[in-house]
This record gives sequence, C-alpha cells and structure tokens, in this order.
Amino acid sequence: MAPWGERLAGVRGVLLDISGVLYDSGAGGGTAIAGSVEAVARLKGSRLKVRFCTNESQKSRAELVGQLRRLGFDISEGEVTAPAPAACQILKERGLRPYLLIHDGVRSEFDQIDTSNPNCVVIADAGESFSYQNMNNAFQVLMELENPVLISLGKGRYYKETSGLMLDVGPYMKALEYACGIKAEVVGKPSPEFFKSALQAIGVEAHQVVLSVY
Amino acid sequence: MAPWGERLAGVRGVLLDISGVLYDSGAGGGTAIAGSVEAVARLKGSRLKVRFCTNESQKSRAELVGQLRRLGFDISEGEVTAPAPAACQILKERGLRPYLLIHDGVRSEFDQIDTSNPNCVVIADAGESFSYQNMNNAFQVLMELENPVLISLGKGRYYKETSGLMLDVGPYMKALEYACGIKAEVVGKPSPEFFKSALQAIGVEAHQVVLSVY
Repeated sequence: MAPWGERLAGVRGVLLDISGVLYDSGAGGGTAIAGSVEAVARLKGSRLKVRFCTNESQKSRAELVGQLRRLGFDISEGEVTAPAPAACQILKERGLRPYLLIHDGVRSEFDQIDTSNPNCVVIADAGESFSYQNMNNAFQVLMELENPVLISLGKGRYYKETSGLMLDVGPYMKALEYACGIKAEVVGKPSPEFFKSALQAIGVEAHQVVLSVY
Repeated sequence: MAPWGERLAGVRGVLLDISGVLYDSGAGGGTAIAGSVEAVARLKGSRLKVRFCTNESQKSRAELVGQLRRLGFDISEGEVTAPAPAACQILKERGLRPYLLIHDGVRSEFDQIDTSNPNCVVIADAGESFSYQNMNNAFQVLMELENPVLISLGKGRYYKETSGLMLDVGPYMKALEYACGIKAEVVGKPSPEFFKSALQAIGVEAHQVVLSVY
C-alpha cells in the first residue's frame, strides 16, 4: 500500500475511461477487464474522488451503467461524464435545434431537446444508422444554414468489437466537414472542455488528477 | 463564323464535360442544356477533334451514351473518357484486385476485373450503396493490407439533382482516408493523368486543346 500511496501524494481525483479501461465491449454486454472491478472498488473506498469519463455515444448513460453494474462494477449514472449530455447542455445554451444523426440507443439522452426545424447537426457513433439517406439529410440541413454548425460526439477513427474493427464517428464527421467545407465542434475526448466538465463534477483541479484513458 | 474561327487558331481539339455542360441529370434521364446538342454537332462537323470527358461514376459508358443519344446527342461510347475504364487500366497494370464500393449501374465496367481476395479498394459515387456495412467492409479490407491502396473515381463534394443536393464520392473518400490514415489516389478530374489520357485518345497536345468543364 505504501508505494502506491506515496505515488499519489498531491493527487485528489481519478478520471477513468470506460471502454478499453474497465471493460471490452462486444456481443452479450462485453467483458470486464481483469482486476478492473476490484480497482474501481478500491479507488472508491479511498480518499480519492472518482469520475468516469467516456466517449460512448451509441448508448445512453442509463444503458451503459446497467451493463457495467451487471459486470460487477459499483457505478451510478451520476458519476459518468459522457458526450451526449455535454452536447445537450451546449444545445440548450446556444438555442440550437439539432438534426440527430445518432444511434437509437442514445436517443433518450436527447428527450428534452427540441429537434423541430433543425438549425444544426449532431453526429455520434450511429453504426448502421449511417445510411446514405441519413448522411444526405444531415448534409442538406447543413447546406441550408447560413452558419452551419456540426457537433460531433467524439472523433474516433474506429473501435474494436469481437466481430472486428468498426468505423467510429470520426470518418463520418470528416465526410460532412469535406462535403460542406466546414469544421466540426468536437464534444467528448480529447476536447479540453469535456475533461474540465468532468473535473468540475468532482471539484478537483487538473493538476490534482490522474487520468486513465484508452 | 470568322471571329469564332480566329479565336480557335492553333486549337486542334476540344474536351467537353458531360453533366452540367451537355445536360443536367435528374429523374427520367435528365434534360439537354439549351443549344448543346447543336454545339456538339457543329464541333464534330468542324476540323476539331472532340472528346467527352466525365467524372460520371454511377453509370457505365454504355448507359450514359444511351441516355445522351435519346436526348439527341451524336455521341458514341468510344468517344468518352470516364474514370471507371481508367481505373480498370490501373488495376490491370498493377495487378490489383479491388473491393468495389460502387453503384450497381457502373458494375459492368469492371466485368473483366478479378475481385477475389481483394488487395485494394475502389470507391465511386455509390449513392444508396454507401451503407455502413459496405463502408465498413471497405475499411476492413484496407486495414488488413500492409500497403493499403484506395482508388477514388473523382473526389466531388456533391452534385445537384432535381430532388436536391446529393453527397458525391469525395466525402466518403475522405472518411476512409481518415479512418485508415491514408491518402486516396484520385482517378478522374482533376487528375492530370486523366486529362492526358483524354488528349492521347484524340492525338492532341495540352496546348492545342480547349476545355469545357463543369
């Protein structure tokens, strides 16, 4: 215990990624990474503040947390910083009504958002919903705006599933950027604002935190 | 006639684009642009060599030429420089076996190409065939190659149909470039090799040609 404690002198909090750090996603809810359930329990039993920080944008926090709890993790929805709720806050603050190019699994996070007569596009890891028609709908919304706003939940290139590598949101964000001649606003890792909001949630400064990301 | 003739002194050939120059595509085969049928007839009756140069990659040359002939144009398949046949030449020269991410309408151009055990990807304006699954297939082929080769038939951002703006091949090319960390080889306009092959077909040098492109 002593060396571990010494190394953490001055540290007041820990930000933990979820996918690839706590568990590997895949069919049947995925599998916990060896030792991670115990590590989370130990951190939460210590004097350290713990916050979970993920770019998961296919699932709502409720669904993600449910999956992790079934794997044995002590984790609640309120402890998770995820891009969808962060995007909702931005949408509300700026009076934006999005066309949502997202996976059905995360749609519930946007329940309180007005999506009529869209004046921006929100793109997330939509998986099979990245059809030509949906992409073209998003493109047409952007092209009709005087100041097109494209908000992307992360910009990952791809991720690994048990069935192989899968295209993430990033390539589709790049496609819309090129088509419209615009630059997306990325919400989620590696955006500094995203990490700051996670730190604010646990009341810890950036120099007092340890980060474990995938 | 005289001023027109004087202005063309030293000019031996004309390269004409098709879509947006000869006709506007759309439902029911599109419509000829006013005066273009007569202009083509007049050019072909002159001492000038005429070559048609298009980035059309949803249709085979046979289909495209059939459509234009129905609109009244005097044009044959052998007078058209298009990206699909140019790509086939490259594939044969370099022993490449493509995974074809293309529209069914252009598939016949690749009839003579071996597509077993792919060692490259050819991407064209695939329209509705730009599904997540097809994009992911192309991505997985590229990621399994030591030297990934992505050949793109043009890199247009979008085109206009009577129903509105439509995403072209360019955004999807950019998506795969970003996902794989590679750079595509573009076959078609604005590639200099593409224009050179059109000039070679009519035996005219670059300084002796007039270009009319959209």
